Amino acid sequence: MPHFLTIADPADPRLAAYRDIRERDLVGREGRFIAEGETVLRAFVRDAPERVESLLIDPKRRDKLAEVFDGLAEETPVYLVEQAVLDTVAGFHLHRGVLAVGRKPEATPAADLLARLPERAVVVALFGIANHDNLGGIFRNAAAFGADAVLLDPDCCDPFYRKAIRVSVGATLSVLTGYIGRGEDAVDLLAGAGFTPLALTPAARRMLSELDPPARAAVLLGTEGPGLSADVIKRSEGIGIPMAGGFDSLNVATTSGIVLHHLRFGGGRR
Amino acid sequence: MPHFLTIADPADPRLAAYRDIRERDLVGREGRFIAEGETVLRAFVRDAPERVESLLIDPKRRDKLAEVFDGLAEETPVYLVEQAVLDTVAGFHLHRGVLAVGRKPEATPAADLLARLPERAVVVALFGIANHDNLGGIFRNAAAFGADAVLLDPDCCDPFYRKAIRVSVGATLSVLTGYIGRGEDAVDLLAGAGFTPLALTPAARRMLSELDPPARAAVLLGTEGPGLSADVIKRSEGIGIPMAGGFDSLNVATTSGIVLHHLRFGGGRR
Repeated sequence: MPHFLTIADPADPRLAAYRDIRERDLVGREGRFIAEGETVLRAFVRDAPERVESLLIDPKRRDKLAEVFDGLAEETPVYLVEQAVLDTVAGFHLHRGVLAVGRKPEATPAADLLARLPERAVVVALFGIANHDNLGGIFRNAAAFGADAVLLDPDCCDPFYRKAIRVSVGATLSVLTGYIGRGEDAVDLLAGAGFTPLALTPAARRMLSELDPPARAAVLLGTEGPGLSADVIKRSEGIGIPMAGGFDSLNVATTSGIVLHHLRFGGGRR
Repeated sequence: MPHFLTIADPADPRLAAYRDIRERDLVGREGRFIAEGETVLRAFVRDAPERVESLLIDPKRRDKLAEVFDGLAEETPVYLVEQAVLDTVAGFHLHRGVLAVGRKPEATPAADLLARLPERAVVVALFGIANHDNLGGIFRNAAAFGADAVLLDPDCCDPFYRKAIRVSVGATLSVLTGYIGRGEDAVDLLAGAGFTPLALTPAARRMLSELDPPARAAVLLGTEGPGLSADVIKRSEGIGIPMAGGFDSLNVATTSGIVLHHLRFGGGRR
């Protein structure tokens, strides 16, 4: 059971990490992040209770969250703060009424992560995914289909940004994440670790539905519009999803779901 | 070529349809809708130029839109309005700088629409999809995979709502849409028209990847969380997408993409 503390003063210094959330979303938080909402909180406490620093909840929600508290360490503070005070602290009306401050795990280099993955594995490697909805959606799909890891190049946005966490339904907090350094060659890195780099691109002649999943598959996705770089595509196996009208019109998160579903279930029966 | 008119006064009555867009998003517009952004506008003019009532653009964007204007009738007004005035009229900073007012098509009853579809057809039938992001995402996928129609039950949100249009990248303006009336039995309607109703539900024992696409397929999707009603599931063919951890964690728009991809490409090669 954690440590419950009722706080009535919005200026209480113990609430510092929760102050003016929106304004601080895009600036550093010194290795911390904010998670919001019951569903995300449940996922967070289930997957990484040791990284929960504190909780801030409207006391009206205390009963509904009972089994969440069971998962927390004794010393973890749960601040009980009435909705109106909570809104003042957060800086906007937080209708979800549930917040947590978590500690980010240390950023793992992609190469280290790849070295630890099993013989058969699927990773998703993202290039320049700067939209939090898309990033969150891809992590959600990675969790749903049991992908082993997500790799991010330096032009991707932060998976610990509040909106990315929310859209991923907490998956950015649990899916193994590796970081590709600036100047590192992602295709070399993947190929060197025995992964077949599959570059999703509308120009590919090979269709996804014709692909027999390799033992170690890396799904390479670029941002909507520009897509992956010509260099990455040239050095990977190009895979396409043909579309009506011939124009590239799938959302990148939806694309990740279709590819991960195929890798998991599409090839095995043939 | 349409009719270009420079307007400098934000109170000009010709701009009435563009006024205070956000506040009016959820109220009636007497059969009209607002489309925004270049990509959506291109799709709209390409797919339904006869339903474009007027355009409102920042004159700086005139050159970039030249081929869009070519698709418009001579009498269609294009209001040229400087960005600052445009923001005043719209009621917020409209960084896309491009708006259109369109006329909605007449709402087609689902039964009438089904009767006109070809021998082989795929429709997506939506139940209670009240989230504009999800509705827009499903229409986008329906267009990408060439679904023949989308059917909406009375608890779905309006596909002509500005955000639904934007997220669909204009697909809600072009994909054939049929409306299921309150009290109408959607499963009967579909079965009566020779469609196999495929109810997507995590409880199903049959996996999507095992499904041989029927000649006339109807993909039934319910809202995230509650899902489809027990009655609809019982009277349909249940189809599931197995997920890691066994819990239902796919977004409904992503689900539609995975199912439509399978119906189009998954079964044909076996």
